[in-house]
Amino acid sequence: MANPSILILAGDGIGPEVMAEVKKIITWYGEKRDLVFDVSEDLVGGAAYDVHGVPLADETMAKAQEVDAVMLGAVGGPKYDVLDFSVKPERGLLRLRKEMDLYANLRPAQCFDALADFSSLKKDVVAGLDIMIVRELTSGVYFGQPRGITTLEDGSRVGINTQHYTTEEIRRVARSAFELAKRRGNKVCSMEKANVMESGILWREEVQWVHDNEYPEVELSHMFADNGAMQLVRWPKQFDVILTDNLFGDILSDCAAMLTGSLGMLPSASLGAPMANGRPKAMYEPVHGSAPDIAGQGKANPIACILSFAMALRYSFDLGDEATRLEKAVEKVLADGVRTADLMGPEGGTPVSTAEMGDKIRAAL
Amino acid sequence: MANPSILILAGDGIGPEVMAEVKKIITWYGEKRDLVFDVSEDLVGGAAYDVHGVPLADETMAKAQEVDAVMLGAVGGPKYDVLDFSVKPERGLLRLRKEMDLYANLRPAQCFDALADFSSLKKDVVAGLDIMIVRELTSGVYFGQPRGITTLEDGSRVGINTQHYTTEEIRRVARSAFELAKRRGNKVCSMEKANVMESGILWREEVQWVHDNEYPEVELSHMFADNGAMQLVRWPKQFDVILTDNLFGDILSDCAAMLTGSLGMLPSASLGAPMANGRPKAMYEPVHGSAPDIAGQGKANPIACILSFAMALRYSFDLGDEATRLEKAVEKVLADGVRTADLMGPEGGTPVSTAEMGDKIRAAL
Ligand SMILES: CC(C)[C@H](C(=O)O)[C@@H](O)C(=O)O
Ligand SMILES: CC(C)[C@H](C(=O)O)[C@@H](O)C(=O)O
Repeated sequence: MANPSILILAGDGIGPEVMAEVKKIITWYGEKRDLVFDVSEDLVGGAAYDVHGVPLADETMAKAQEVDAVMLGAVGGPKYDVLDFSVKPERGLLRLRKEMDLYANLRPAQCFDALADFSSLKKDVVAGLDIMIVRELTSGVYFGQPRGITTLEDGSRVGINTQHYTTEEIRRVARSAFELAKRRGNKVCSMEKANVMESGILWREEVQWVHDNEYPEVELSHMFADNGAMQLVRWPKQFDVILTDNLFGDILSDCAAMLTGSLGMLPSASLGAPMANGRPKAMYEPVHGSAPDIAGQGKANPIACILSFAMALRYSFDLGDEATRLEKAVEKVLADGVRTADLMGPEGGTPVSTAEMGDKIRAAL
Repeated sequence: MANPSILILAGDGIGPEVMAEVKKIITWYGEKRDLVFDVSEDLVGGAAYDVHGVPLADETMAKAQEVDAVMLGAVGGPKYDVLDFSVKPERGLLRLRKEMDLYANLRPAQCFDALADFSSLKKDVVAGLDIMIVRELTSGVYFGQPRGITTLEDGSRVGINTQHYTTEEIRRVARSAFELAKRRGNKVCSMEKANVMESGILWREEVQWVHDNEYPEVELSHMFADNGAMQLVRWPKQFDVILTDNLFGDILSDCAAMLTGSLGMLPSASLGAPMANGRPKAMYEPVHGSAPDIAGQGKANPIACILSFAMALRYSFDLGDEATRLEKAVEKVLADGVRTADLMGPEGGTPVSTAEMGDKIRAAL
């Protein structure tokens, strides 16, 4: 069998810096564990726009469709704020999600023991927190038609977007959530606004259908998304897997991420249907953004990106043990007190650089 | 001049209980301050459905259009979960908002000193917190057409809702936010998803227009709504007035409310255009729901509803001093350690009943 293939799209801002540390880890696996990956690299976001005039070139899109996994850094930056909507860095990311049909976005919100003090929440509220948010990623208001801005005769304007979900779109992402729940706490809480939106009613009914017909053994509850936001803040440990749509997922997963107090630590996986080789279409990326304010200074925390690679080992390459090894290495380094600037408490101390953090993790492997 | 008029719609669950305490306060104002209100009462939500088969009768709607202010308790309960979408208790509330055209929903998220320990957030993060969320309330995905669920030939279904905003809808609520900011910290942060939704681009541009043309002296910033949720959790005191649309406002205001740790304390005002007498169309309601689990037990905290009446004094009746008097009375009672069950800490103690809390506040006036 050919080596598993990875396309690295480092993107903008701190993307290239954090991705450099992932490359070290990939190299380590080849040298030390005889796990050789075929790695190629290309551009996305503003970096692609600068070269191609679009945030994702067609050839890059084609490559992404071919590989076993895409590793994405981050996109966007103030330099690109003036660009037209259609060529903004984000469109590159959204195109990858849509054309690869990566419908299940997995966002773990996990609180690391060594970092529980960093949360703005009380320690007992977040210590040991381990939630998995499953966000639908290829439909809903992000992609629904009609959309756009129309100017009326009197000069005033109308802005429209369409929330649009089908039975199958809901059922397939629900299955992802139930499958994950079975390997975790066996509980799914589905969130929508069925009290206000018909698309929310459909969501609730289809999720219930998948539960009743295919996963009756998993505990399922439903919650309105506004209450969901409240409950996340009040007592997040009540949740195991949270299942929600594209837009609610965007907001609720960021809220959940911030509960942990360490955004620089959180990975994500975006998974689609299985390819011919049985592996799912997949893209992995840190939850944090491109952080233009600290880009190029060696200050960025590479852990979120490294843990995204751990998710790749688990979900794309069926190497759960190796994923756990990498996660343990990260925990060890944190327990040893190694900290990038974003993880420095008020007590101070000397932060390590992006590269030093990557080196320490590799050494701990 | 005729006495100012108030229509009380106590609604479901704990609504009638908490509203009973507001009535005591209204009576006190008539007896002690010679501020006599013409009070009438009617049904909304499940209570209206039980009698009329609809969650808001046309006659009630007509009355609401006539009065100076509507005081609403809460709507909904498990008994009504089986009802069709079109007659669910929530539809009564949404009809009031829409037909009275109450476009500006003011939701203060304030942390009371005496209760700062109740938050799941660290004390220094929330102590002294005082944010005003201005949520657009009559448009957006809550009311946009087309909407509904369609069954296709193959039996699968499609659920649709439409996010829809016009220039004028955005500008008028933006003006409300800027006006409020001028009397507070002079800062507005507007939240949308302009990186993904064209309606968000329109929102951002129109808010900026109102700022540049009418309120250049107020500080304006823009933030993506997902980052907004993060920042609310990370360091909420960075905000003064937050301006956002109907759906984002629903979620973000609940998130902000929970930061304070005392949902039973938070009031809201929903304001429309000025009527012939110069007063705005207005409805006041607590942020908390109908809490069916504790309804009828005298356990509910009436403070959110009482503070909603304080907002009525301020925004409908131009009685800012009296509003402050009532708010101070609430603070005093809390400082004295008077607590309903929801405000009991782990140290325990004996909670007072809904009625006792109301009596204490009236006595403190
Ligand atoms: C960058 C942006 C388009 C994106 C989104 O809204 O999905 C981001 O916020 C995310 O959550 O991955
Ligand atoms: C009850 C429901 C319809 C309502 C809403 O979604 O607006 C509530 O959540 C609120 O925020 O007032």
